[in-house]
Amino acid sequence: MPRKVDHDERRLQIATVVENLVLAHGIEALTIRDVAAQVGFSTTVVCHYFRNKLEMMVFTHRAARQRGEQSLMESLRLGRDVMSAAEELLPITEARWRDWHSIFAFWGLAPAEPAVRSEWALGVAEAKQLFVQLIVAGQQSGTVRADLDAQAMATQFMVCINGIASLVTQDRGAWPAARQKALLADMLRGNLTPNPVPMM
Amino acid sequence: MPRKVDHDERRLQIATVVENLVLAHGIEALTIRDVAAQVGFSTTVVCHYFRNKLEMMVFTHRAARQRGEQSLMESLRLGRDVMSAAEELLPITEARWRDWHSIFAFWGLAPAEPAVRSEWALGVAEAKQLFVQLIVAGQQSGTVRADLDAQAMATQFMVCINGIASLVTQDRGAWPAARQKALLADMLRGNLTPNPVPMM
Repeated sequence: MPRKVDHDERRLQIATVVENLVLAHGIEALTIRDVAAQVGFSTTVVCHYFRNKLEMMVFTHRAARQRGEQSLMESLRLGRDVMSAAEELLPITEARWRDWHSIFAFWGLAPAEPAVRSEWALGVAEAKQLFVQLIVAGQQSGTVRADLDAQAMATQFMVCINGIASLVTQDRGAWPAARQKALLADMLRGNLTPNPVPMM
Repeated sequence: MPRKVDHDERRLQIATVVENLVLAHGIEALTIRDVAAQVGFSTTVVCHYFRNKLEMMVFTHRAARQRGEQSLMESLRLGRDVMSAAEELLPITEARWRDWHSIFAFWGLAPAEPAVRSEWALGVAEAKQLFVQLIVAGQQSGTVRADLDAQAMATQFMVCINGIASLVTQDRGAWPAARQKALLADMLRGNLTPNPVPMM
């Protein structure tokens, strides 16, 4: 299906331009005209790929969060532990930091908009499902406490990752990768692993 | 100074309109023209209070976060414990939920903008300072473990609150107040209080 592939590639190409413009000028300044000028198409051609600005923003958010989800899926496939998998979602690289900016920007859209609400719900559900799978895999291999509620633990991972990313985005220079990872470990590692046998 | 008070009140009145418009239509749709129409002024009058849209958004963010900070200051004054103080920042009321939407919307602005960066830095620093004060007060009164690093613990509170708010904002119906408070307690209460004496 070369035409479908081409269509998807064009949409991703446009989403990259949207991400760059939102980072450079803020989401409130985004116009289809600027997107078209940057991507080298007319606004008519851009509107062939996205019916309106909202659809374009929903797709850009989805592309950003799915890059994170693909990293979790890869960790699951490789049998990596949930803590290492989670670290990769933190804004510790330039690319991930840019994606987080797109994700935060999308949280400022209107909750009354059905396309926004369904994208929010889908994003939370898909990330949570992947964390549950990683935690259950850890329980099966013995690296995660068997008595933990995987659903509740998955939610705690999402709280920590979103929360750490929110602090990093507001003061990037203060948060080198090692500090982000150490904070995530401080907050969650104690809950994951069996208590050590106390000294007699 | 009646003229100064009047000026500040007008700015707050405009910020409330901005918050409502951003919630109803998303930050990307905000225009000074719509703000002026809603508040009942001409755009010229609005531009007397805010030189441009960016300044208006910075002020709206500040008003939203300062309502949270005032609640922390009130808790400090009344000698309430840090956990109860923190709960009041969660989006458990309609008013707080609206403020969180303004705060998230502001995270999508451009980090290259000095006014945005300095407002982010100020917001994080002021909230952290209040949490440190609440934790130190708890250590002095014996409700918080004396050996905890108050700075590190304050950061954990901010991670949890921002992270929980991020999940609530994306699926408000799934997060009644009791669920939000229980999650905050699950994540932090164990770190705050002395370990119980083990059974022999």
